[in-house]
Amino acid sequence: MKQKLSIIKIGGNVIEDPDKLSLFLSRFSRMEGLKILVHGGGKLATQLATELGIESNMIGGRRITDAQSLKIITMVYAGLTNKNIVAELQALECNAIGLTGADGDTIQAHKRPVRDIDYGFVGDVEGINSKTISQLLNTGLTPVFCAMTHNGHGQLLNTNADTIASELAIGMGIDFETTLYYCFEKKGVLMNVNDDDSVIKHIDSASYEKLLQDNIIADGMLPKMENCFHALRNNVHKVCIGDQKMLDPNTTLYTTLTL
Amino acid sequence: MKQKLSIIKIGGNVIEDPDKLSLFLSRFSRMEGLKILVHGGGKLATQLATELGIESNMIGGRRITDAQSLKIITMVYAGLTNKNIVAELQALECNAIGLTGADGDTIQAHKRPVRDIDYGFVGDVEGINSKTISQLLNTGLTPVFCAMTHNGHGQLLNTNADTIASELAIGMGIDFETTLYYCFEKKGVLMNVNDDDSVIKHIDSASYEKLLQDNIIADGMLPKMENCFHALRNNVHKVCIGDQKMLDPNTTLYTTLTL
Repeated sequence: MKQKLSIIKIGGNVIEDPDKLSLFLSRFSRMEGLKILVHGGGKLATQLATELGIESNMIGGRRITDAQSLKIITMVYAGLTNKNIVAELQALECNAIGLTGADGDTIQAHKRPVRDIDYGFVGDVEGINSKTISQLLNTGLTPVFCAMTHNGHGQLLNTNADTIASELAIGMGIDFETTLYYCFEKKGVLMNVNDDDSVIKHIDSASYEKLLQDNIIADGMLPKMENCFHALRNNVHKVCIGDQKMLDPNTTLYTTLTL
Repeated sequence: MKQKLSIIKIGGNVIEDPDKLSLFLSRFSRMEGLKILVHGGGKLATQLATELGIESNMIGGRRITDAQSLKIITMVYAGLTNKNIVAELQALECNAIGLTGADGDTIQAHKRPVRDIDYGFVGDVEGINSKTISQLLNTGLTPVFCAMTHNGHGQLLNTNADTIASELAIGMGIDFETTLYYCFEKKGVLMNVNDDDSVIKHIDSASYEKLLQDNIIADGMLPKMENCFHALRNNVHKVCIGDQKMLDPNTTLYTTLTL
């Protein structure tokens, strides 16, 4: 039987609020078994850019990661946010180690190819180095990934944290029974967007098709769900979506996705 | 027989110059055997502070690491500098992993006690976690430490890079035959400060006393040398001081220190 591995992704709503973050890290540190944390960047990078008088470079409503933005992202994601999370987890007796995909060559990517838009230093994940990550886990370490990868030729790349989490779950799924947790501001996938408690407790491939037809899942939720089913079709055992309370063993109100 | 381990420290003069840094990283990547890199911060942190309009907090000519400075140091040392070095080493096929002392609890420290001056968030090293560092080395990874430690209670601390290098050499010296390399702008310890080629090739405890008496070693060199002999008296096999060329196997012009 495969060993269990939990991969938890948190986003801006947790990272930007020190109280919420402390609460989350305390929950995360109490989770049993092997685990990996993936964090996005939040608004801190945008704030720093503004303070430095660097304007966001937008093309067609999409943010471009130019050289200046990449510098700021490297400072905030890999430095400030990542290392403070690591130090706080250490205080909670969770032996965390902060990583970008360049560290230990753990996540390889390439610069997103230019089609209509040149996104700049944005990485599309090619694969993960499950051997090195397994070795870190077996050493008793808890990897904490920020949303950065590298191309193997010396270039760091800004990379979507949801994708990093799902690619880690997929890559580690060969050797581990991986569960992917997406923590966000809602309690789960909602039947009615105006009712925060209308959580759909379980979605599988069949009910997903029905939800799509009924337009229950749309807008921002759509790429998230596609990402989840992509993971489930590729070695990932289970995906859970909800707020940070879902990490507590006695919480039942969140969405579980299976094939 | 103990396995050999090289610990190389570079400072601002290498880090601040992209060409010098690339040259150094190429040399470092070619070094055989197990190795650890320790880098200081350089002027990038001061530059960023200036751009953000944050003034250096100085007391009695000494720089104080207040909360704002610590934030900048975390961004520049642990983020920008450390991760770009790691990405560049990966391109040179050196499997680097960037670390602060908080990562894997590798370097424990405490805030420097307040006597005459409160230095702020400055760490004095208590000890290193040789077991975790050995495991990383045995996994085929090359640790790259920036000049930051933690107190185990969630606080990151700005820590002198020379001290981190010597404490690593001391702590790893129990299990490895450690050689400590201090890379700086000169070819070695000079007999005559005005003659860059007047390198003293070998210094031991006896000749060191003589050099002190003759005032050959003074000013900035004095704490560096004390640090070296402290390391030699505590498990460190050898200390080498010189410019980055000393990492080349055929270079002979640098200073070697032994007891």
